[in-house]
Amino acid sequence: MIEVLRLGHRPFRDKRISTHVALVARAFGAFKLYYSGHKDDILEKNILKVVDNFGGEFKIEYIKDYLGFIENKKKKGFLVVHLTMYGLEIDKEIGKLRDDNVLLIVGGEKVPKEIYDLADFNISVGNQPHSEVAALAIFLDRFFSRKELTKEFNNFKVKVLPCEKGKKTIKG
Amino acid sequence: MIEVLRLGHRPFRDKRISTHVALVARAFGAFKLYYSGHKDDILEKNILKVVDNFGGEFKIEYIKDYLGFIENKKKKGFLVVHLTMYGLEIDKEIGKLRDDNVLLIVGGEKVPKEIYDLADFNISVGNQPHSEVAALAIFLDRFFSRKELTKEFNNFKVKVLPCEKGKKTIKG
Repeated sequence: MIEVLRLGHRPFRDKRISTHVALVARAFGAFKLYYSGHKDDILEKNILKVVDNFGGEFKIEYIKDYLGFIENKKKKGFLVVHLTMYGLEIDKEIGKLRDDNVLLIVGGEKVPKEIYDLADFNISVGNQPHSEVAALAIFLDRFFSRKELTKEFNNFKVKVLPCEKGKKTIKG
Repeated sequence: MIEVLRLGHRPFRDKRISTHVALVARAFGAFKLYYSGHKDDILEKNILKVVDNFGGEFKIEYIKDYLGFIENKKKKGFLVVHLTMYGLEIDKEIGKLRDDNVLLIVGGEKVPKEIYDLADFNISVGNQPHSEVAALAIFLDRFFSRKELTKEFNNFKVKVLPCEKGKKTIKG
């Protein structure tokens, strides 16, 4: 089971990026998104609306004390992986990261030093500046060996079917 | 050579998403980002600043008439691939997409029907709603068989080195 923690959410500036982080977490096989920073009811509502429409059991939860939260997850046996452009190369490390329970941390604007120290692994998806959304997608895609991308979500109201031109959907 | 066209940029609402699209295009091996919608000097300046700091030759250019632009690229022999959650599955189609010159289109909020018709391939990175940033990263990662992620950029001022804890950089 992979859960994702998104640090430092700011409702005004980060709404769309955090929405993308949450939707990528869901689509690529994570179980739940936790987020710290500022609580954002609209973000939560938007994500739950997607879950309601497209199915599955994905959850979202605000965490105030993220350091305590991470320490607690470690005590429960979670492997803590922090995605950062400064970390070790994903393709050299991924074999060591396949644990039963993983907490995957993606940063916001400024990540405090404690996160680097608390993490069992600091992992980079390339050492160039790009995007926490992309880093999360690539990590989950590698972690699940591409298998989650085509998984079925139960209890959907709408399902998209692959199509050569235009749009094809069915109702659940 | 892959070039990316990002449709329908809105400076206020899309600034950070378009920035992530551009940085992902650069980091994952695309040559240039074109964007349509509204011209955004700040977006362009931010991207060129990253290129100046971290190296390489990545370019960004605003396109007003994106339909004429796409038609022109097709005439020049570019394969036009449109990323959409409604398209055919990437892992079934990727073998057909490795052309010398590819124009990769990523959508904005609402993609006009003409794009689906103009594209040689409409390709989905999963059929769940998630993120054009993630879709672009996964596509380029597959297209280049993971090789671009560790490529070197020349003429950098700063270079990040993989590191177990903290941050390690060198100056160019």
